[in-house]
Amino acid sequence: MNKNAIVGQSGGPTAAINATLAGVIRGTFENAKIDKIYGMINGIQGFLDGNIIVLNEIFKNGEDLDLLKNTPAAALGSCRLKLPDVDSNIKSDIQIYEKIFKSLAEKNIGYLFYIGGNDSMDTVKKLSFYAVKNNININIAGVPKTIDNDLNGTDHAPGYGSAAKYIAATMQEICYDNAIYPIKSVVIAEIMGRDAGWLTAAAALPRLYGGKSPDLLYLPECGFSDEQFISDIEKELEKSLNIVVAVSEGVKYFDGGYVCEIVNHETDIFGHKQLSGTANHLKYIVKEKFGCKVRAIELNTPQRCASHIASLCDIDESEQIGFKAVETAAIKEKNGIMMIFKRISSKPYIIDIGYENIANTANKIKTVPPEYINAERNNVTDGCLEYIAPLIIGEPEIIYDNGIPKFFSL
Amino acid sequence: MNKNAIVGQSGGPTAAINATLAGVIRGTFENAKIDKIYGMINGIQGFLDGNIIVLNEIFKNGEDLDLLKNTPAAALGSCRLKLPDVDSNIKSDIQIYEKIFKSLAEKNIGYLFYIGGNDSMDTVKKLSFYAVKNNININIAGVPKTIDNDLNGTDHAPGYGSAAKYIAATMQEICYDNAIYPIKSVVIAEIMGRDAGWLTAAAALPRLYGGKSPDLLYLPECGFSDEQFISDIEKELEKSLNIVVAVSEGVKYFDGGYVCEIVNHETDIFGHKQLSGTANHLKYIVKEKFGCKVRAIELNTPQRCASHIASLCDIDESEQIGFKAVETAAIKEKNGIMMIFKRISSKPYIIDIGYENIANTANKIKTVPPEYINAERNNVTDGCLEYIAPLIIGEPEIIYDNGIPKFFSL
Repeated sequence: MNKNAIVGQSGGPTAAINATLAGVIRGTFENAKIDKIYGMINGIQGFLDGNIIVLNEIFKNGEDLDLLKNTPAAALGSCRLKLPDVDSNIKSDIQIYEKIFKSLAEKNIGYLFYIGGNDSMDTVKKLSFYAVKNNININIAGVPKTIDNDLNGTDHAPGYGSAAKYIAATMQEICYDNAIYPIKSVVIAEIMGRDAGWLTAAAALPRLYGGKSPDLLYLPECGFSDEQFISDIEKELEKSLNIVVAVSEGVKYFDGGYVCEIVNHETDIFGHKQLSGTANHLKYIVKEKFGCKVRAIELNTPQRCASHIASLCDIDESEQIGFKAVETAAIKEKNGIMMIFKRISSKPYIIDIGYENIANTANKIKTVPPEYINAERNNVTDGCLEYIAPLIIGEPEIIYDNGIPKFFSL
Repeated sequence: MNKNAIVGQSGGPTAAINATLAGVIRGTFENAKIDKIYGMINGIQGFLDGNIIVLNEIFKNGEDLDLLKNTPAAALGSCRLKLPDVDSNIKSDIQIYEKIFKSLAEKNIGYLFYIGGNDSMDTVKKLSFYAVKNNININIAGVPKTIDNDLNGTDHAPGYGSAAKYIAATMQEICYDNAIYPIKSVVIAEIMGRDAGWLTAAAALPRLYGGKSPDLLYLPECGFSDEQFISDIEKELEKSLNIVVAVSEGVKYFDGGYVCEIVNHETDIFGHKQLSGTANHLKYIVKEKFGCKVRAIELNTPQRCASHIASLCDIDESEQIGFKAVETAAIKEKNGIMMIFKRISSKPYIIDIGYENIANTANKIKTVPPEYINAERNNVTDGCLEYIAPLIIGEPEIIYDNGIPKFFSL
């Protein structure tokens, strides 16, 4: 007997999360076991509020799916709801699960797809555990995304390639911009990445092809010291008048304290510290020590939403992993899984799409390994760049309307 | 008798200043009256230090000129040297002019092209006045550029269209990014523009075509008040949960004080105040008054160097105005001019390239006129957007090398 499917998006936006949504929708359209495909508006939180729509009618036109594929952010909206513990004895906690699975049953939903990052995979894990525990016949699959590339169990995360491409291109442009005056100048660019330096590492990519890239890179994986930083800048200024530094927002001193001791010490609901101003802090160090022109730049949200310079590799793979999630859940009848990329080879770049038991993947952080970091701990190795390089290849065909990219809106 | 030509770049970088350089170089290549084309390295300052190169050999290959055309920043390097008063009686001042014109004579230079903004046109004015005053036979032409679009005497400035396109596209992406959570959130994006709001106005462009754009715009042309700002945000939050604001870095209170009273009160050598942190200041106002999620984003240098999303209209026009400068100086034998755009019509967009006596143009600021600003002084009119719209049309063919834009370097 045929069932329906539902898909939701959760966590921070990326330039590729809608490509995955497009892949899931296409997958359900082509799957004979699935009738309707519902969409949660604002993820599991919206679903709890009864906020769902039928996607079949909206996307019967293939053109809209193509537009969706290259649209930034999350077309269905997102949320940051953390589900309670599956084994909780608190009544209100139990009621949340009961409500979710009652609604799923009412809509005859046999397949649930949830696109998101580490925290969203936590939701997938809990929902699938609850289903197994209570003998509920539903297949739940997580499809990963995160610009941070810090998800365990997959070669890389959908969304990372586009962010990496934006960072590589933008940092190269900043290097050109900073090189024009015959006076000492230091630019310090702050790049996203709370615990992992994958995004900052991408700033070095142009180096592989003779382009311009930052002189120094600081990653959260390496302990930071003001003394080494000053000494590094000093050495670089001996070689060149114009220096560019890329620094992860999450760099920490050897004692574990963030380089920027933050003005507000708020944490989000998952307990992550809200950081800001690492580059600004370093700017004052350089200003004081060298007295030269210094500029702090925070690359900020364009890192995760600059669809106009998305990576074709990333957008295509993100769609394919969404498509494959449907196949895996509906044909292979898998539950409690996260879809993953397995790298068969880098040269030529060959990827296989598979899946992993969600229990093995959720809530673990994949950082840049020590062998990808240089001996001075102020840059990445060519090996690191060769791992990243294929992920930024190719440019999607962006549809421009009067000079402005055209995107999809519900 | 044939003469040589020289070209220099000066002032802040743009995505289009190298297109103008390419146009000047092509113009001299095709001009029978010009033998060699020299390049000043780091503008008039480098020229004073004897830092010049011959460009004919370097660019005999047309491919490199094409690459140059789409390269950000200033390939010849730039400077911010302010020349002394032409009528100065101070010996060291007089010696500067003597040195410049002696070097020009030694190289048999009959045509000097200087590409830059307001401050660079000041240099053009002084050099041409000195030449006239001293009966020196040289034609000096300024070719304008500024992302700020605040140059008088020309319909618009080369470089503005590309910055405007970057801002329109990026602000639209930021609007998508900010709209995903079902909670109150305000994003405040700070856009370049010390005295003129042309760049901030460009953020509203997607509105003309049904795209997403900021809810509120604040320009330096309008007096700013915290009370109106708070009231505006309040009204917008009644209409929608997710608000995006674009604000010029240079917005001022009615008493003339900058909204962000700056930490350091340094001024650059032209006496401009160095601003920073307008968006950050407004962020704290919103946080305090509404207690909601607020993010400040400074679009920063990518506004002037994001060649990967340059405007084809801007790049092509910037090349043409450089090409025409050569024609005007060498065939029409004009001295002391600034090249300008005259708009014949907006629909269809037709532009004529002409020139203006430099005395009529230099050191004046063109701001956004009152009729382009709405009655509430918190947005721009459709008329304003229709003026900007043609300038961002078209996408240059960027050459990508392994997923990263390929640029020209000397």
